[in-house]
Amino acid sequence: MEETAKNEHQWGMLLDQLKKEDINAFRTEYLDMHPYDQAQFFQEQGRDERLLIYGYLSPEEVAEIMENIEIEDIEPFFSEMDPRFAAMVFADMSTDDAVDILNELSKDKVASFLTIMENDASDEIKQLLHYEEKTAGSIMTTEFISIFKEQTVKATMAQLKKEGPDAETIYYLYVVDEDKRLVGVLSLRDLIISEEDTLIEEILSEKVVSVSVAEDQEEVAKMMRDYDFLAVPVVDFQDHLLGIITVDDILDVMEEEASDDYSKFAAITDNERPNENALISAKKRLPWLIILLFLGMLTASLIGRFENTLDQVAILAIFIPLIAGMAGNTGTQALAVAVRGLATGEYGKQGKFKLILREAATGLITGTVCGIVITLVIYLWQGDIFLGLLVGISIMATLVVATLAGSLVPLIMDRLNIDPAVASGPFITTINDIISILIYFGMATAFMGFLI
Amino acid sequence: MEETAKNEHQWGMLLDQLKKEDINAFRTEYLDMHPYDQAQFFQEQGRDERLLIYGYLSPEEVAEIMENIEIEDIEPFFSEMDPRFAAMVFADMSTDDAVDILNELSKDKVASFLTIMENDASDEIKQLLHYEEKTAGSIMTTEFISIFKEQTVKATMAQLKKEGPDAETIYYLYVVDEDKRLVGVLSLRDLIISEEDTLIEEILSEKVVSVSVAEDQEEVAKMMRDYDFLAVPVVDFQDHLLGIITVDDILDVMEEEASDDYSKFAAITDNERPNENALISAKKRLPWLIILLFLGMLTASLIGRFENTLDQVAILAIFIPLIAGMAGNTGTQALAVAVRGLATGEYGKQGKFKLILREAATGLITGTVCGIVITLVIYLWQGDIFLGLLVGISIMATLVVATLAGSLVPLIMDRLNIDPAVASGPFITTINDIISILIYFGMATAFMGFLI
Repeated sequence: MEETAKNEHQWGMLLDQLKKEDINAFRTEYLDMHPYDQAQFFQEQGRDERLLIYGYLSPEEVAEIMENIEIEDIEPFFSEMDPRFAAMVFADMSTDDAVDILNELSKDKVASFLTIMENDASDEIKQLLHYEEKTAGSIMTTEFISIFKEQTVKATMAQLKKEGPDAETIYYLYVVDEDKRLVGVLSLRDLIISEEDTLIEEILSEKVVSVSVAEDQEEVAKMMRDYDFLAVPVVDFQDHLLGIITVDDILDVMEEEASDDYSKFAAITDNERPNENALISAKKRLPWLIILLFLGMLTASLIGRFENTLDQVAILAIFIPLIAGMAGNTGTQALAVAVRGLATGEYGKQGKFKLILREAATGLITGTVCGIVITLVIYLWQGDIFLGLLVGISIMATLVVATLAGSLVPLIMDRLNIDPAVASGPFITTINDIISILIYFGMATAFMGFLI
Repeated sequence: MEETAKNEHQWGMLLDQLKKEDINAFRTEYLDMHPYDQAQFFQEQGRDERLLIYGYLSPEEVAEIMENIEIEDIEPFFSEMDPRFAAMVFADMSTDDAVDILNELSKDKVASFLTIMENDASDEIKQLLHYEEKTAGSIMTTEFISIFKEQTVKATMAQLKKEGPDAETIYYLYVVDEDKRLVGVLSLRDLIISEEDTLIEEILSEKVVSVSVAEDQEEVAKMMRDYDFLAVPVVDFQDHLLGIITVDDILDVMEEEASDDYSKFAAITDNERPNENALISAKKRLPWLIILLFLGMLTASLIGRFENTLDQVAILAIFIPLIAGMAGNTGTQALAVAVRGLATGEYGKQGKFKLILREAATGLITGTVCGIVITLVIYLWQGDIFLGLLVGISIMATLVVATLAGSLVPLIMDRLNIDPAVASGPFITTINDIISILIYFGMATAFMGFLI
């Protein structure tokens, strides 16, 4: 990882060979790099250099590069390739990666690529294109190794040597019956420590854990994390083996889901890409902003009801942002704890009740501490102990209620089968604005006698 | 995954066997489950049942259960075991898991376990305990398979059969020289497709990617995700092979880092556990709340400077939470995009400049839309076009500045080598409170003539 200097030198050399059209030297040097590094170099080049690269490499070699480019950045490359070449590249990619990319392209383009492609490759891809996004079906690959109970270890090793190079993993072999139903699994580990003439049925494990093709990808990720699997088979409702999901794809899923949760928390309707333009960004953020604008109007009209109180004691207005802000902050904290806990499945039924009790107690402690601090500060600053007490007690009450709201809202959403992550920070903040203002002005109106 | 009903039946049976002290039946049934499921059952039992389980299983079998329990929940189990038994369990665990757990225990307890343990096991653990938390050294395991250039494929297969059962992975074999320096790597895939009398040096890959023992675990995770590795070797500064990190540990790291980012975003100083008590939770949240309280006082004193304006036009106070809230919301959105982009390393140097430009444009669009909406709503509600324009234009200006602030603050922090994730939502919200109030009251004071 401290190889940046070396990389720059190497890149310079590659670029040189590319421009001098020294095909052989370029191929030797370039293909010797890890495919991820090949992709990094490729993406930094201009269109002219890229067209040269397509010319120097085989579709299979370009396919390996494409598999290492972020899905969102890949479309322009396929558009600039000769369509026949592009179709060959697709045919040479892992089916799961090819499908991911095709899902990003327009329907017309997909149709034209599939027409050019050879039949067997396009059939597999067509089938995978049917699965819904973010399900096991959409991230699985069909390049797995399946064996029969009746084979020997020796025959299986021979099969591995033949099919191994094209398979996504050779570390698990899936045992199927004549109807392609999944009946067992064998790890390569168990295979190589067995004698050559052993039958597969003597060493396979029948307790194979599989996922349904319609399973949510986040659930698959959680399962692979819990069980430490390197791959998991995907089956339909009759237990037919359809594909496998490997751990490298799960790493990408986890990254994607973490970004998703993060975006929802910040009230953005969809993940944003760094190279997106402002109009698209604005479109993703505006729905929430408009909703929050109207919730804000509600807050404003609430304060409007206390206009009398405000007219008499204008200084009250000074502390509105402070109280509303503290309510928002503490609510956001409680929300994050609850959402995260729900996402990782840490709560049982009693756990939720205990969480609420704990949040109430936490709110009481933080509220008391902050309340005392603010009372003292205001007393020292404004010399008015009643104003200090009013703000201090309001903060205390607000923090208890806001902390509770921050944990209750996601729990209720979860109960109603709404993704609790949409209970975003800004949403909770606005709810808590309203609660805090009711408490503050309610108390101020009640005890106004002491303030004037 | 639809096996809940079956599970409940099985658990009832297991509990029955446990209570009847039917050791053999219990062992057969229980050890037949996946270790993760064994751990799930184990954790649901009371102390009496757990003590029975320790008695029925060997230290090695208990070690497998312990490896599948969340690190934060594990301490009580080791405390209730007989110390000699506990030491044997530690000795039988993967070194990386044992070290993770020992890091959670008190120094006294660790010392006493290490004293009881056999020398070779405790030596390895002692060494690993020295590595700093969240570095490659702290998550690596020392149970890898190393081979020499001069071996044949046949000898290597024999070595695999012998060492395989104890190794963390057999899918990568690491080639070292006589000084234990890492000189190459060989995948099991390449091994099994080679002829028996081939020498390792003919088939090894010398371009082995390794990480330094002091490397941050998040960097290791990013690398393994980019390069699709199942394992990566860990070396010291002289390239001596110290251990390996496997992808199953990386899944845990990613989960942990995602939770971390989430917590920081919500302004909680440390990850919270669901079963923690309120006092600990409050302690983690209070530091930020107190800081934000004082920032809030700053906002209050700012409004205080406009007391004259407020005294004359009390209705201005009504819209304070609305404007401050919108500033906070839009800032949080921009912040999340920037922090996430920085975390996944999506920006180059130009990327950052482009991001700022885009955020400015995004702010202008969202600001204009929200500004027009609010102007109309206030005009229709209060019948006062000047008040509507004042609030509308304030919102527009606020949204531009707040969106920019939301992206600039994390970029600046990143430049100063501060983790941008600490630029939490509440922090940005409070900063934007201040900005928005300055804009709003500044404009109100300037154009007061139109309002009275």
